[in-house]
Amino acid sequence: MGFSDIDTLAINSIRVLAADATFNSNSGHPGAPMGMAPVAHVLFNNFMKFNPKNTRWLNRDRFVLSNGHGCMLQYALLHLFGYDLSIQDLKDFRKIDSKTPGHPEAHFTPGIEVTTGPLGQGICNAVGLAMAQAHTAAVFNKEGFNLIDNYTYCFLGDGCLMEGVSSEASSMAGHLQLGNLICIWDDNHISIDGDTNVAFTEDVVKRYEAYDWHVVTVENGDSDLAAIAAAIKECQAVKNKPSLIKLRTTIGYGSLLQGTHSVHGSPLKAEDIKQLKSKFGFNPEQSFSVPQEVYDYYAKHAAEGAAAEQEWNALLAKYAEAYPTEHADLLRRQTGDLPTGWEKSLPTYTPADAAVASRKLSEIVLSKIEGVLPELVGGSADLTGSNLTRWKEAVDFQAPQTGLGNYSGRYIRYGVREHAMGAVMNGLAAYGTILPYGGTFLNFVSYAAGAVRLSALSHVRALWVATHDSIGLGEDGPTHQPIETLAHFRALPNCMVWRPADGNETSGAYYVALSNKTAPSIMALSRQNLPQLEGSSIEKAAKGGYVLSEVEGAQVTIVSTGSEVNICVDAAKVLAQQGIKARIVSMPCTEVFDQQSLDYRLSVLPDGIPAMSVEPMSTLGWEKYAHEQFGLNRFGASGPVKDVYKKFEFTPEGIAKRAAATVNFYKGSVVRSTLKHAFEQLV
Amino acid sequence: MGFSDIDTLAINSIRVLAADATFNSNSGHPGAPMGMAPVAHVLFNNFMKFNPKNTRWLNRDRFVLSNGHGCMLQYALLHLFGYDLSIQDLKDFRKIDSKTPGHPEAHFTPGIEVTTGPLGQGICNAVGLAMAQAHTAAVFNKEGFNLIDNYTYCFLGDGCLMEGVSSEASSMAGHLQLGNLICIWDDNHISIDGDTNVAFTEDVVKRYEAYDWHVVTVENGDSDLAAIAAAIKECQAVKNKPSLIKLRTTIGYGSLLQGTHSVHGSPLKAEDIKQLKSKFGFNPEQSFSVPQEVYDYYAKHAAEGAAAEQEWNALLAKYAEAYPTEHADLLRRQTGDLPTGWEKSLPTYTPADAAVASRKLSEIVLSKIEGVLPELVGGSADLTGSNLTRWKEAVDFQAPQTGLGNYSGRYIRYGVREHAMGAVMNGLAAYGTILPYGGTFLNFVSYAAGAVRLSALSHVRALWVATHDSIGLGEDGPTHQPIETLAHFRALPNCMVWRPADGNETSGAYYVALSNKTAPSIMALSRQNLPQLEGSSIEKAAKGGYVLSEVEGAQVTIVSTGSEVNICVDAAKVLAQQGIKARIVSMPCTEVFDQQSLDYRLSVLPDGIPAMSVEPMSTLGWEKYAHEQFGLNRFGASGPVKDVYKKFEFTPEGIAKRAAATVNFYKGSVVRSTLKHAFEQLV
Repeated sequence: MGFSDIDTLAINSIRVLAADATFNSNSGHPGAPMGMAPVAHVLFNNFMKFNPKNTRWLNRDRFVLSNGHGCMLQYALLHLFGYDLSIQDLKDFRKIDSKTPGHPEAHFTPGIEVTTGPLGQGICNAVGLAMAQAHTAAVFNKEGFNLIDNYTYCFLGDGCLMEGVSSEASSMAGHLQLGNLICIWDDNHISIDGDTNVAFTEDVVKRYEAYDWHVVTVENGDSDLAAIAAAIKECQAVKNKPSLIKLRTTIGYGSLLQGTHSVHGSPLKAEDIKQLKSKFGFNPEQSFSVPQEVYDYYAKHAAEGAAAEQEWNALLAKYAEAYPTEHADLLRRQTGDLPTGWEKSLPTYTPADAAVASRKLSEIVLSKIEGVLPELVGGSADLTGSNLTRWKEAVDFQAPQTGLGNYSGRYIRYGVREHAMGAVMNGLAAYGTILPYGGTFLNFVSYAAGAVRLSALSHVRALWVATHDSIGLGEDGPTHQPIETLAHFRALPNCMVWRPADGNETSGAYYVALSNKTAPSIMALSRQNLPQLEGSSIEKAAKGGYVLSEVEGAQVTIVSTGSEVNICVDAAKVLAQQGIKARIVSMPCTEVFDQQSLDYRLSVLPDGIPAMSVEPMSTLGWEKYAHEQFGLNRFGASGPVKDVYKKFEFTPEGIAKRAAATVNFYKGSVVRSTLKHAFEQLV
Repeated sequence: MGFSDIDTLAINSIRVLAADATFNSNSGHPGAPMGMAPVAHVLFNNFMKFNPKNTRWLNRDRFVLSNGHGCMLQYALLHLFGYDLSIQDLKDFRKIDSKTPGHPEAHFTPGIEVTTGPLGQGICNAVGLAMAQAHTAAVFNKEGFNLIDNYTYCFLGDGCLMEGVSSEASSMAGHLQLGNLICIWDDNHISIDGDTNVAFTEDVVKRYEAYDWHVVTVENGDSDLAAIAAAIKECQAVKNKPSLIKLRTTIGYGSLLQGTHSVHGSPLKAEDIKQLKSKFGFNPEQSFSVPQEVYDYYAKHAAEGAAAEQEWNALLAKYAEAYPTEHADLLRRQTGDLPTGWEKSLPTYTPADAAVASRKLSEIVLSKIEGVLPELVGGSADLTGSNLTRWKEAVDFQAPQTGLGNYSGRYIRYGVREHAMGAVMNGLAAYGTILPYGGTFLNFVSYAAGAVRLSALSHVRALWVATHDSIGLGEDGPTHQPIETLAHFRALPNCMVWRPADGNETSGAYYVALSNKTAPSIMALSRQNLPQLEGSSIEKAAKGGYVLSEVEGAQVTIVSTGSEVNICVDAAKVLAQQGIKARIVSMPCTEVFDQQSLDYRLSVLPDGIPAMSVEPMSTLGWEKYAHEQFGLNRFGASGPVKDVYKKFEFTPEGIAKRAAATVNFYKGSVVRSTLKHAFEQLV
């Protein structure tokens, strides 16, 4: 394809917009947008398939800016191509409540696919998007109906390449032979500390070849548009490997300070912007001024995208006739709604049923619902047999030529890569047809904290099957026993932490976690067996917290979660023998409990008697629900589970002793429920 | 070197001990110990320099078991070489309160250098140990005094190689040209999910060559002892690159199930152990039985190690004469004590001094103390100019041939590798001569959660300079604004979270953080300027929480941290105008406050009036110190700092409004301090 002056003008318009917007907000990163404007222009205008008027068209090409600090590049492109982002929005860059925040946020800026900025995440999201494309294509494409064939493109910087999470996902992508993934590395030799030579001297090309990627180098990313186009074309043609384009660019191209870290994270000076505009043939006195011909040029490609969508819609209409079931499923999946009545597949239990570990109860749920929820696609970070995340007949998601599975397979072998698993799930979910879950030990969800945070921030429905959830894992010891983990994720906004106590609660946890379209969930599940409780139900668990056992004239409320609820039930019996009446509250999810009416919550944790929490990990946060807290504000111990529980007194007797002390301590006091407050929280 | 029957017998003794111990505890991982027994034997008996009777000998070779689940290998070796680990300790493997927990824990098992198990961490610790060796050698070795020349050896499995954190540290190690680091990869093709081919098919050799490591392959790690020895020897000779030995082994060698994942994480069956013992010439009816000749054989090498230490001590004695200052410094460093009077270098401030960001106050502290604390060695994860972690005259820690610095340099360029930074700090600290610190944004300490957890668990003194600590960072927005981070690390046992409010508190935070030899600290520091407060001091801050401003007849206590304390002071003025008397408590570190006497704590947060906390992030845990909590249980916003604070009402007026509501709500109630409890916590 040929390039001419209009291409240069368009590229320089992007550069000037980035300089103007960062100057106007006196904040932000002009360097990457100015350096990557050429490749962005070529990619968006000559290769990418999208319709700015319908950002949800399923078969659009996906674009991820893994170096999210360069978001003015993306905002400029979205504006120029006619997305719902005005020039005023660009002027409001990095201003409060604007559509153009300091880093791209998927859930409120049209055209942003995933939320990026925390380095290394975006490329993993891109791997997830490419996996989702491969899977969706394998499930829905039919002879003559090549419905799903989009590419996923990703820009990334040196910072993303240094982050370990990108190494994990890149190794996975090579293993999975994701041909439709094309990543472009902004090789500008600059990071915040200056020349990348001070810390980053590895041979990246060789490393990506070691991952079995196709790697191309473009020596002049500043102006050799033909070479950029040729590289992308070459990568598109490679069908069984992801591609990396090493693109040599000059950061802050056009600035007097180009090629230095001074242009990385600070706006250009006024004089510098003036010379930039003069050099590029722009009026140095005007800001946020885009030549009409550039708008027109981009409008042409936008119109081609709209036409392509029209054509695709026509194909989809024919598909609806030929494959009505698949068509209906594809449409439904994109709404995020689950099939009507799916929840009838959730198992229920009575106290007569056997004691079962909640990790096993989770496996039973997955096995029962996978048939009615075909969008459920999950895996484990190499702990399949421990997390119990794989239903018996599951097929592995693998490149078909490996003989290990195929792309329509719904079980993902993540390897020991928890952080990538979390970030890949964000990409899988963002594609629009998949509901992802991933398994590891609860303690190692912490390895993925950066990704879980972005799930919560960007409203991603993703499930963590987090087994071995306490000192109850026993012998593996303190290195594997979570203490701080639940407090950590309970403090994270928009993240549901579930710790079910039995089979009904496990079903209830899955019911809410899967029904909620805008929040991730962490299911903390036991290694050890748990009895089926008298008084539990899916409906009660779905309220987050409920009265498991009531008693007339109760003197104390014992509130507990997961594997300790049944011990609290026994503790109440010990207390009864001492003449103390205790009611039991089960609290599988504090976040969901918080969303109930105050009346309901006060019926669970009422005024008048003290409450005591029981959970064998950090007590931090339990003060919100209970006057007294029995927990473990220290690390655990290695030993058989019974010995560990005994050591720390998480026994009926140990709990009863503290409950009795609680009753005694509050005797004669006016006790107010901890739920009553002077003012509302900012949520 | 030649090998004979005694070597085989020794190797098989290790294998049998591993099978016996895991069988006896009915728990654990026999596979790796049985597969790696040959290389462990050759390494320990033919190469490693150590004295089992003095595990703190400075110039001992370091050994790290990154695949920590294989710890029975290490426990067996420690026992056989005569460390303080008896055969009874092996029988107590994975039993409660034993010296042989489920994964190696450095702080209570003699001979264990670092705590491992969470995959990927150990190899990063090894990188840190090797960096510490290079640094200590560069600082202390003199002509004729080659005091420090030990090697660091590390075993790692496929799981460690899959974890991103190991990629980060391996790239660093190659860049830093750490010649004394030799890692041995147990290439057994098995992980928990079965054959590694399901998830891990990259070319590891090529990847490590891309990192600029020296890589050697040993095809038969099961029995070719000569090849193993030759490989180690070859790697020792490579002086400017770290080395990786790819060692093909058979997991669970000797078991009927050898080479399968069945032997990875479960004890062998009784019959299998019998055939194993018979095959290896052991009495199948005896358990934990070691041939005396094996003890004798290992005792010989242990004696050589003791002699080597004697020789080294003689050299050290001469060094003491020639270089008394260096000698004294080297000895002092190993005690962990800081030089007497070092704290006099900490700056103090008065309210007349200018407002300064606490990240800048931290830089001033580092600049003032670096001269008196030569063991202080730190860096930043590519945010030097933002974290302000580098004093002006600092020299970079770099391979001298790069021209960028030298190994005696004390400033580490970590690159964008937060997790590795945390894990490397654990290794640096473990060496015994370095006090490490590392900088990043507070939000990205979460990337390193796995490493911070191990710092806390294994009693490592390491400092995180965690800047941009709240919504106060402004424009970068919600992707970078911590909400859950402080709650997360406050819930982590043995971890100090500091959030100083001004210059004196910053000095106080450093005073306690550096003085405490057994806990990591996270210093949450502001991007924005903070005024010097009336009433603050190093001594008061060092108590963790104190009364900043008292008022007769106070109706409410406002307790706050960091950048909001000065806003609370202004809020008190607003309240005074409304006739409400508010006292102000500054609480830079809740963990340290918790350690004060109850009397003192009650003097800070007394009975009788309600307390309200103010911190613009998750309120989780503040219920412990305050009846009401003003915080941010949602994500932040991108915009100039003043606009963000105004949006969320963290202004004198917004705080005063809520304090007034608090006074009103508790009017007429008997108010008990939240510090009073019915029973003691398990800490």
